Amino acid sequence: MPMPADPLASGSLNARFSDRLAAAIDRAGVPACVGIDPVLDKLPPGLRSAPEPARAIHDFSVGVCDAVARVVPAVKFQSACYERFGDAGVAALRESIRHARSLGLVVVLDAKRGDIGISAEHYAAAAFTPPFDADSLTVSPYLGMDTIEPYLKHAGRGVFVLVRTSNPGSDALQNTRTEAGRTIAQLVGAMVSQLGVSHRGVRGLSDVGAVVGATKPADAAALRAAMPDQVFLVPGYGAQGGTVADIRAMIRPSAKAPGDMGVLVTASRSVIYPAWSSPNWQDDVRAAAKTLAKELHALQ
Amino acid sequence: MPMPADPLASGSLNARFSDRLAAAIDRAGVPACVGIDPVLDKLPPGLRSAPEPARAIHDFSVGVCDAVARVVPAVKFQSACYERFGDAGVAALRESIRHARSLGLVVVLDAKRGDIGISAEHYAAAAFTPPFDADSLTVSPYLGMDTIEPYLKHAGRGVFVLVRTSNPGSDALQNTRTEAGRTIAQLVGAMVSQLGVSHRGVRGLSDVGAVVGATKPADAAALRAAMPDQVFLVPGYGAQGGTVADIRAMIRPSAKAPGDMGVLVTASRSVIYPAWSSPNWQDDVRAAAKTLAKELHALQ
Repeated sequence: MPMPADPLASGSLNARFSDRLAAAIDRAGVPACVGIDPVLDKLPPGLRSAPEPARAIHDFSVGVCDAVARVVPAVKFQSACYERFGDAGVAALRESIRHARSLGLVVVLDAKRGDIGISAEHYAAAAFTPPFDADSLTVSPYLGMDTIEPYLKHAGRGVFVLVRTSNPGSDALQNTRTEAGRTIAQLVGAMVSQLGVSHRGVRGLSDVGAVVGATKPADAAALRAAMPDQVFLVPGYGAQGGTVADIRAMIRPSAKAPGDMGVLVTASRSVIYPAWSSPNWQDDVRAAAKTLAKELHALQ
Repeated sequence: MPMPADPLASGSLNARFSDRLAAAIDRAGVPACVGIDPVLDKLPPGLRSAPEPARAIHDFSVGVCDAVARVVPAVKFQSACYERFGDAGVAALRESIRHARSLGLVVVLDAKRGDIGISAEHYAAAAFTPPFDADSLTVSPYLGMDTIEPYLKHAGRGVFVLVRTSNPGSDALQNTRTEAGRTIAQLVGAMVSQLGVSHRGVRGLSDVGAVVGATKPADAAALRAAMPDQVFLVPGYGAQGGTVADIRAMIRPSAKAPGDMGVLVTASRSVIYPAWSSPNWQDDVRAAAKTLAKELHALQ
């Protein structure tokens, strides 16, 4: 696919999140996202020995961003890995997000937040203004769509609503069928799609995206039918078993450029924890990110 | 109801969470919880002018705990209100939880976390060891019960799983009926009950509790039938419209002491934001907490 010239290719928050993301994907040529889930005992040996754990995960996170910034359009930070270290960890997360955005990376804050009313407003303010100031946030649908609306009041930002995950216990709820014969995931997908209609950008994609794990292709096709305008944030590529074939079933049929595909495929462990073989660990991460990008080029 | 002498009435983490909570409720004589949701512009005038917002919410939170510690057995901290202020807010939360526990209050950390595998382990470690070191945590069921198990590996701690909420948009998912004719809330309730069986204490209550809003009594009775061993954390009493009659339908039929009722009724705004009329604002909060306790005595 040719990469279109896109007037929204800047990172300006005057553009919708979905348009900014699509433009960033077009520039990179591939809908890839590196998941940053820092865990102390997996860090490169030189960082593992830092006296302060929060310092080590900060330096690792910033170093990963530097390594992948020209290879992929987006990074996803796993909030749990930072919260684990309390306020020091949260400060490391804040600084890492700021650094990622300064490099032009689109930031997904993977915190899976969900609460009602004023609490949702607080979570939205935390995510989308300083301190954290991320481009997008993962959120939970269990409490209903009214609990997602507060996040959409922040111009230029987006959410990814949990719809379908690949963990062993996910079927018990997400795959249960309703009276009307749909699965719960499909019902939630329809709710997400409806909520997203009034938040679509010039590319036809909505600022209300969906988290959809790389599961069976039939499942993916039904969810794409339920959510024609959603960007699917697809975790679990690579180390967790997702393949290019699994993702192909999720792509919007109308896609003419990488940014129109409606997917953002995330790999974490396979990129940030490669075999450490280079004198500079960032070279190993960059090489792994390039491998990810090359594999995902096959989607086109 | 008489208050039984209870060998587990200490705060020792050698006892199960459910037994510690029941003992604390027996000591207080009432299953009441004060929700601490600090919002700057509602603080007592003397605190509102603090130069650092995080300092103001810290001082308010600590002051509320001091005011209510001899009146109610438990407090619930709304994480969003602290996260709003980034690492400084998270430090305020950490200190406030430590203070509450030092006063013998059972602490619910209301953060509604939910993630898979290793990320759930990180959230559990954050909640149940330093930095936060809370007694219990609210968690989301959408990803499945396998994502709740990591929290149960921490001895002496408990979770409250979101089952039924009272916000306007909650019906769309929680009240949808499955093929089998149950509501989604009832299905999740059955999953919670099953998960909780192997985590019951000497009182017959499980460390796996449920968040159940004060909704219609018929709804509450069906959820109690689905979850005989669960402590229901009931938000929204008072300012949000819940009444004693609504809560009565949730009480376990076998209850012989306040700690056996299987409810922990939470009031936030009506207690922490009373009309400020006393020279010392904490006297107003204490009086409001006493009113809450007196009202809930009617449950017996």
